[in-house]
Amino acid sequence: MELNKYTAFFNEKIRKESPLIHNITNFVVMNSSANILLASGASPVMAHAPEEAADMASVSGAVVLNIGTLTKEWIESMIMAGQSANKNNVPVILDPVGSGATDFRTDCVEKILKEVKIDVIRGNLSEIMSLAGGHEKTRGVDSSIAGISSEIIEKTKELAKKYKNTISVSGETDIITDGDNLISVKNGDPLLTKITGMGCGLSAVTAAFCAVSDKNFTKASACAAAYYGLCAEKAGEISDKPGSFYVNFIDSLYSLTQDEIENKTKF
Amino acid sequence: MELNKYTAFFNEKIRKESPLIHNITNFVVMNSSANILLASGASPVMAHAPEEAADMASVSGAVVLNIGTLTKEWIESMIMAGQSANKNNVPVILDPVGSGATDFRTDCVEKILKEVKIDVIRGNLSEIMSLAGGHEKTRGVDSSIAGISSEIIEKTKELAKKYKNTISVSGETDIITDGDNLISVKNGDPLLTKITGMGCGLSAVTAAFCAVSDKNFTKASACAAAYYGLCAEKAGEISDKPGSFYVNFIDSLYSLTQDEIENKTKF
Amino acid sequence: MELNKYTAFFNEKIRKESPLIHNITNFVVMNSSANILLASGASPVMAHAPEEAADMASVSGAVVLNIGTLTKEWIESMIMAGQSANKNNVPVILDPVGSGATDFRTDCVEKILKEVKIDVIRGNLSEIMSLAGGHEKTRGVDSSIAGISSEIIEKTKELAKKYKNTISVSGETDIITDGDNLISVKNGDPLLTKITGMGCGLSAVTAAFCAVSDKNFTKASACAAAYYGLCAEKAGEISDKPGSFYVNFIDSLYSLTQDEIENKTKF
Repeated sequence: MELNKYTAFFNEKIRKESPLIHNITNFVVMNSSANILLASGASPVMAHAPEEAADMASVSGAVVLNIGTLTKEWIESMIMAGQSANKNNVPVILDPVGSGATDFRTDCVEKILKEVKIDVIRGNLSEIMSLAGGHEKTRGVDSSIAGISSEIIEKTKELAKKYKNTISVSGETDIITDGDNLISVKNGDPLLTKITGMGCGLSAVTAAFCAVSDKNFTKASACAAAYYGLCAEKAGEISDKPGSFYVNFIDSLYSLTQDEIENKTKF
Repeated sequence: MELNKYTAFFNEKIRKESPLIHNITNFVVMNSSANILLASGASPVMAHAPEEAADMASVSGAVVLNIGTLTKEWIESMIMAGQSANKNNVPVILDPVGSGATDFRTDCVEKILKEVKIDVIRGNLSEIMSLAGGHEKTRGVDSSIAGISSEIIEKTKELAKKYKNTISVSGETDIITDGDNLISVKNGDPLLTKITGMGCGLSAVTAAFCAVSDKNFTKASACAAAYYGLCAEKAGEISDKPGSFYVNFIDSLYSLTQDEIENKTKF
Repeated sequence: MELNKYTAFFNEKIRKESPLIHNITNFVVMNSSANILLASGASPVMAHAPEEAADMASVSGAVVLNIGTLTKEWIESMIMAGQSANKNNVPVILDPVGSGATDFRTDCVEKILKEVKIDVIRGNLSEIMSLAGGHEKTRGVDSSIAGISSEIIEKTKELAKKYKNTISVSGETDIITDGDNLISVKNGDPLLTKITGMGCGLSAVTAAFCAVSDKNFTKASACAAAYYGLCAEKAGEISDKPGSFYVNFIDSLYSLTQDEIENKTKF
């Protein structure tokens, strides 16, 4: 099956099965991530208390660990949720928001990666490169690397091999790799960078696709990026400003048809 | 006075008096609950620090305790706010978000109900049934019970009798009871379930109606549900997708007329 | 250069340089403040962990300390961020949300003002008067003072002199003073008071203007208020209800032209 058809297939499966997506995510995007998941057909839940993080993860379809606005206490909950997910065969998606911007964030990501088997890491180029080491400092939470060189592709592949997982890098072109194979996704709209939490939202949607993917996490991550980017394109056709773009984007996530997915996703 | 006229009366009173509604609520919905209250004419405040929770509750028109994204520390603040409200004759509304989904949430609700006199419990059917005991596990924070049987109505009435308060159950038809009387509300729109925090928003609006109700909490809760559901209907006439629906819903909360309330609320 | 031209100049500089604005702000407005900053051309980051607050502040263009939904632990992070900013010549903007509403909030503001050199205090009239002392209690987080008397102007000037900084008071007419000079800004729209976080959003935008102002904080604060108020006016021309007003407001922040700024700001 080709990737555009996979995207349509996963999308329909999410709408039918409405997988529970457990998010331990940052305060800035809790509302938008929940709405993005609901519009995509999934069922979001946010729960970070150490007393329930593991319980909630164990009954979820996928778990999202997102380190924006992180504190020490939350890392413990993330590790508990992640390990519970590992034990229960629940996929875990890590969003290393702002990794590289401060030592604290970089250290947190390392700690989580040491304690939890992460199935997909989804971030922007700066964040992913900070995990690969040797790159200039990330500036805040926005990406500071413009293009994607073959050196970057190699580093990303090595990272995926190191963690035996999928790396999903967002940018003008998204690249997704399991270390051997590389998928690129060309759907998207530049206004996504003018609204907060749009990367975090893709991590959440990636989790929803992984939840119904029967462990095809690389395909699922690529399909999620294409679905998400295509909805952004649709919103961009209606609005060229971020306030109304966001509204139309949510509407598109909710109403995108199987036909549109099959014909307009660009891998 | 009939319930549709009560709804119009309470609604106008909220707009005139702008009661201060003190919310200790979850991170996902803080922004939407505040905007829903403002659009409805009330004045929201969020304050969970143990140093000020009791102070803020004592000068409020009503207090909302909402257990989504709860941690242990917040329970203490909720109890302090709740007891301060009790002492000062300020109505307290409890939203047991996700009660039944994990033991932690169920235990939190029990603890709050033991320490604070709750005037109204507002939740979806799964959550309310988890308080009545004996039901299947709640799945995340969405309701997993489709219809309302007479058995459910009996259990809800018993619950209201047990806690000597009002129980407001949201669903396709909302039911509100004080243990003896039962009011059903038929206003609403299915898109409310595709946007996060819409149940939490109703709890906040219920608090605003209670604040101006002269202790008629059952009537106030029913009127709040009808006002809220009618605004959703109006939004649904303009938009059939969640992004634009939410925008129109906020607009409707702000602009619904006394005439519309009197003629279109369905009890 | 006149103030309207300064506003256009600062606005363009923000779009070109995209200053990093570090916010330690309340949960209710994290999302809206981030989106307001992005739409204005700045680059927001939220980070409150004590392990990274100072690091993040040191590389920022400006720091916002906002005390809504504050707890004791966050005050420490605010002080660390503020002192790091002071050391690194990064302007610090304080938003005393709800100061005067509870003793805890008033005490927090005093503590921060003692430990950190604050360059701009931006609040509504109730909040600012609570700092000047001797005024009636603030009610929640909304302003309870209708007009601006000459007594209020004097008190505000004294406050600016006391803290050797800029005080920016929002209302129907905004007043901005460094203790000697007073600038008034007449742009704005009443719907700003019907949406949560709009004052907090102005504090964030004030920070962005300060970041590119070469230490002209009083001018920068006035220009920020005019830019912000003018965008509200534009939104108000399109929508008279808060849901759609907010969407149009974000769109206006993003698309306001240099011409509009030069011709329509009202000082």
